[in-house]
Amino acid sequence: MSPVFTVDQHLTDVLESFDEAANPRLTKVLRSLVAHLHAFVVETGLTREEWMSGIEFLTATGHKCDDRRQEFILLSDTLGVSMLVEMVNQDSSDGATEATVLGPFYVPGAPERAMGESIAPEGSNGVEIVISGVVRTAGGEPLSDATLDVWQVTPEGLYDVQDPAIEPMSHRGVFRTGDDGRFQVRSTVPVDYQIPTDGPVGKMLRATGRLSWRPAHTHFMVSRPGYKTVITHVFDAASPHLGADAVFGVRDSLVVDFSTGETGFDFVLDPI
Amino acid sequence: MSPVFTVDQHLTDVLESFDEAANPRLTKVLRSLVAHLHAFVVETGLTREEWMSGIEFLTATGHKCDDRRQEFILLSDTLGVSMLVEMVNQDSSDGATEATVLGPFYVPGAPERAMGESIAPEGSNGVEIVISGVVRTAGGEPLSDATLDVWQVTPEGLYDVQDPAIEPMSHRGVFRTGDDGRFQVRSTVPVDYQIPTDGPVGKMLRATGRLSWRPAHTHFMVSRPGYKTVITHVFDAASPHLGADAVFGVRDSLVVDFSTGETGFDFVLDPI
Repeated sequence: MSPVFTVDQHLTDVLESFDEAANPRLTKVLRSLVAHLHAFVVETGLTREEWMSGIEFLTATGHKCDDRRQEFILLSDTLGVSMLVEMVNQDSSDGATEATVLGPFYVPGAPERAMGESIAPEGSNGVEIVISGVVRTAGGEPLSDATLDVWQVTPEGLYDVQDPAIEPMSHRGVFRTGDDGRFQVRSTVPVDYQIPTDGPVGKMLRATGRLSWRPAHTHFMVSRPGYKTVITHVFDAASPHLGADAVFGVRDSLVVDFSTGETGFDFVLDPI
Repeated sequence: MSPVFTVDQHLTDVLESFDEAANPRLTKVLRSLVAHLHAFVVETGLTREEWMSGIEFLTATGHKCDDRRQEFILLSDTLGVSMLVEMVNQDSSDGATEATVLGPFYVPGAPERAMGESIAPEGSNGVEIVISGVVRTAGGEPLSDATLDVWQVTPEGLYDVQDPAIEPMSHRGVFRTGDDGRFQVRSTVPVDYQIPTDGPVGKMLRATGRLSWRPAHTHFMVSRPGYKTVITHVFDAASPHLGADAVFGVRDSLVVDFSTGETGFDFVLDPI
């Protein structure tokens, strides 16, 4: 390559073009993004054909997005970016419950349910499971009046919002702790399921020999006034896909034994 | 952040997930891309809201793309990535003509034109200009039978393909050098023009206080059997936007004086 104009000088020019942004945070984010994009191109010696493949991949990913499908979030999930954003924003102490991804299937406004009530509709096919425990501080103090927003797949491996044939708010519920901080959630044992693979992200997974499975889990969003909200999953220790979660959300501290029909898990919140 | 599971360990897990790709080059490119994306998130401490803004920006960019508009290429251009890809793929000697971006307006199959013929249609409004010179080697040897594919905007600042009212192949032509390596192209003085700003890229430019102008230029693609093809522009020294090209394509060695109605420029090719 000609030394007349170097890639370093080129990068400097592009970075300086963002210095006039009214918002200094925008300048900072764009400068970092551009520096890493350029480093990627230089490091790989990206060819024109590869660059064009990237343009076509991004375009197809955009075209796959609509009101019901968000292929860019799926791409972020499968590149570990969504989980990383949770990690850098978690800001919790060593003792607090580890967070994991929210995922695309959270729906606000799930029905409030009594202690021990099931989130599965009557007549559900799955194996019954009871998850109980205490919402507490790292120091062991129980937290009354904490809210647990719980959601998971049906025994058929679909969230209610993925299939119009499923009764809305199936396998969803909001629980509240009593004075002793205790909660009890009844459900069906969650099952492993595949993320959607009929788009560009599915192509990427197949091209790289990756699996599209998520290990079985139940989602929890645990909040309480004065404390930081924890968004996490509880994973089934029996899942064969714990070591290959398509979205890299598994944490050892979140894996529990569902095999006996009941399991315990405490949620530990940090004060704000 | 909890030290139970570090961002470094997370990155290692994601990188290793690409090791089974059938194509080792794909593994290399994806590993580099993921490492830089993760470094960007960590370095900026990207918030959940900023991440979501990024998802929405990419989605809107995808939705803006169709058969006639390629907003992802425009994004690549305005982040300096397209020009960088040209730079890392140029692989030319110090003496060869510097390359710049192809741009989205190249059309193959332009009419062959005689030495000194104009690429502007009869009755064109612009100021006439003659660009002449020699296609040669770095050592000064003239190259006969070299092809110069030339295109530029009309005096109204549009390429023929941007407006159905413009005769197709206006301001386009293919020239061939004689035994002495000489060429002569007649045209109208190119004018500064704006890249499309009615999409997400335009929003980005406005948010960062950047201009959307490209300094006036004439495109050349110069090729000859046995030599490396050069894709470049010749820029008008009188353009007020030479220091702020929206796509970062200006190189000092490509700026010429159009003010006298004729200008000289030699194209220097490297052997393959």
